[in-house]
Amino acid sequence: MYHLKHDRPIVQKYGGTSVGTLERIDAVAVRVAEQYRSGYQKIAIVVSAMSGETNRLVDLVSGINPRTSLRNYDMVVAAGEQVSVALMAAALEKHGVPSRAFLGYQLGVVTDNFHAKARIESIECAKLYKCWEDGIIPVVAGFQGVTGDLEITTLGRGGSDTSAVALAVALQASFCEINTDVDGVYTADPRIVSDARLVEQMDFEVALEMASLGSKVLHSRCVELGAKYQMPIVVRNTFKPNSQPRTIIMSSNPDRKLEAPIVSGVTLDKNVVRITLHNLPVRGGIIGSAFEVIAAAGVNVDIIVHNRSHDSDRMRVGFTVGTTDLSRTKELLEKWTLEKKLGAYVEVEDGLSKISVVGLGMQSHPGVASRVFSVLENEGIALHMISTSEIKISCVIGEKEGESAARALHKEFIAHDA
Amino acid sequence: MYHLKHDRPIVQKYGGTSVGTLERIDAVAVRVAEQYRSGYQKIAIVVSAMSGETNRLVDLVSGINPRTSLRNYDMVVAAGEQVSVALMAAALEKHGVPSRAFLGYQLGVVTDNFHAKARIESIECAKLYKCWEDGIIPVVAGFQGVTGDLEITTLGRGGSDTSAVALAVALQASFCEINTDVDGVYTADPRIVSDARLVEQMDFEVALEMASLGSKVLHSRCVELGAKYQMPIVVRNTFKPNSQPRTIIMSSNPDRKLEAPIVSGVTLDKNVVRITLHNLPVRGGIIGSAFEVIAAAGVNVDIIVHNRSHDSDRMRVGFTVGTTDLSRTKELLEKWTLEKKLGAYVEVEDGLSKISVVGLGMQSHPGVASRVFSVLENEGIALHMISTSEIKISCVIGEKEGESAARALHKEFIAHDA
Repeated sequence: MYHLKHDRPIVQKYGGTSVGTLERIDAVAVRVAEQYRSGYQKIAIVVSAMSGETNRLVDLVSGINPRTSLRNYDMVVAAGEQVSVALMAAALEKHGVPSRAFLGYQLGVVTDNFHAKARIESIECAKLYKCWEDGIIPVVAGFQGVTGDLEITTLGRGGSDTSAVALAVALQASFCEINTDVDGVYTADPRIVSDARLVEQMDFEVALEMASLGSKVLHSRCVELGAKYQMPIVVRNTFKPNSQPRTIIMSSNPDRKLEAPIVSGVTLDKNVVRITLHNLPVRGGIIGSAFEVIAAAGVNVDIIVHNRSHDSDRMRVGFTVGTTDLSRTKELLEKWTLEKKLGAYVEVEDGLSKISVVGLGMQSHPGVASRVFSVLENEGIALHMISTSEIKISCVIGEKEGESAARALHKEFIAHDA
Repeated sequence: MYHLKHDRPIVQKYGGTSVGTLERIDAVAVRVAEQYRSGYQKIAIVVSAMSGETNRLVDLVSGINPRTSLRNYDMVVAAGEQVSVALMAAALEKHGVPSRAFLGYQLGVVTDNFHAKARIESIECAKLYKCWEDGIIPVVAGFQGVTGDLEITTLGRGGSDTSAVALAVALQASFCEINTDVDGVYTADPRIVSDARLVEQMDFEVALEMASLGSKVLHSRCVELGAKYQMPIVVRNTFKPNSQPRTIIMSSNPDRKLEAPIVSGVTLDKNVVRITLHNLPVRGGIIGSAFEVIAAAGVNVDIIVHNRSHDSDRMRVGFTVGTTDLSRTKELLEKWTLEKKLGAYVEVEDGLSKISVVGLGMQSHPGVASRVFSVLENEGIALHMISTSEIKISCVIGEKEGESAARALHKEFIAHDA
């Protein structure tokens, strides 16, 4: 267990569904007021926009000009947190808790200039310490920051989690609590795998793999930040009592690794497309050049599989992208192969999903990969691509087979140990 | 006529109905783009929140905590202009006009600390001049400012007009254009008086009286500011061509006063309550003390009538307030008279309205007051209170008689001259 250091603050983040109505904002304020009166007053609250509000604002700005500069986009969407943060401060006041709302520029949440996907560079904490000296609970707008030129920036979707962890790091907080609409991180999606279990303690490495593999509870940037600065992250349900089980993500004790579960979780990402470049000439730098074209367009490539045979002067390389990036990526690559006169062609396969198992115990348990492949093949599932790391194994399979694969792998690796 | 000085900028303000939908924002951007391409690029745009948005935000913050600190109130409601200003910049970009949105703190619109009714103290114009040097049209959020401590403030209802005129003053602009949903200022409300006419030129003094007497086209603070700094204000319809008649409010030429119309306009305010303090002891300072109590609560008192007879040791004083301030004012005065053991009592009459005629020509035409009273009495209308200044005559009458009074006075003083 992590230890609460009473001289250190804690950061509590409340997501969009937790502040989605005035009633819910009020309920969150009641919880914070109870903590305040029980003596724990060194809390910083971080809030998201009311659920649905960010989408409404994105629709407005895309409606007026889908190609507007991201500076305008950021100014519009940051209005969502401006409203929720002041409403939360007003609700806390109503419940007798002195409170003060802070926007990004007011607190000094300084980011780089990459609008709509900015990264936090520094946070000034002096105003928060002043609040606590005066018995005031600060409420900080998530998702937003400000550049050195006073331009409003936003951190990208899920950015409020990142704001909360970054603030916890800057404050050297005891931990960062992510309050959301589920009880924590599960061994698999409970809507798909009926006996999925809440994971009460999870290592950063596992959480990071699960976040990037499609578990939607946490965004990977927030877990990355927690891992980098060893900031414990507690994921819990906003509207359940404190006694309810939750997930604590923290650094693993080296001793624990020996007894770590082989597989901590099974994740499914249904949003996968495979692109294959066929008939590429075998020439130095050609693969690097292909991925430079894609990276320049801001497309995130996930799995890359390349396995050249030595008896041909032509080769192929396959990789996966999210469905939203499909058409742009295809267009760019076709232009590239024409311009370079490569004689290659682009093949696209959609209707795919990616099933992954993640666990620290894999490092000390050989043979996990072969068990994964056998389980899937016994289910009659064909494997399109395979990608492995020290602590995860991912297979690209048919989209329709994703849910049965998740159930079979969960049964093999997790339910048996229950 | 005022003269357009091409070396000086102009400020164009677009109100809530002018930016009420994405289509309207787009239409405004088309107008600005036409001006831009015709060579007039030294324009600063000021926008209000999309119509209905400020009310929605006020409902949210009042819904969570009707007694919240005004700091939170201001942070919530200022989000409306944050959205519209960035949408307008996005629309201008779409029509090929380089543009940049500015919030209050980004431009340096510094106000005092009176949240929800702040007054602008200074505006930094350097960023705007930099925009024009670079061929960029700046779009400035109306209604909002920032204190020296970076707290968001708002200027009160109608504050965007004030923002626009203040900006025009700071920029030493040629004039400030208020683009709205009517063609200009009329001699009376056209919905009540069918032959009401547009006033093409109006003196500041007349405009100020008309604004404070209930003509809803302009707010009196904006006219006050224009008068103080001699900044011409042009009131025109956003969606009508430039050739459409409009109202220009500016300083009167001293020669013109001689030939000024006796009555420039007739205004009707239906939102009037009379409060009478009866049986007050005749004692030094007692009336001042009563109005101090009211002023401390932020209530605006309009007409005050007091006419003591010399043969009594008791007196009475009557005054009018807006209906929204009625219950608070009554409560305060009853508490005051009890505490001071005055033996006075408070009488309230609602269902009243105030009809006024305004015109510079009154100064050189005696007998206007008697004509006003005769017209009203010939209509069978009883006069409850009378208040006069050099350029206006106001009568408090029954609410139901307000519209017929407006028609009769308009016919007597204005329609005859047509």
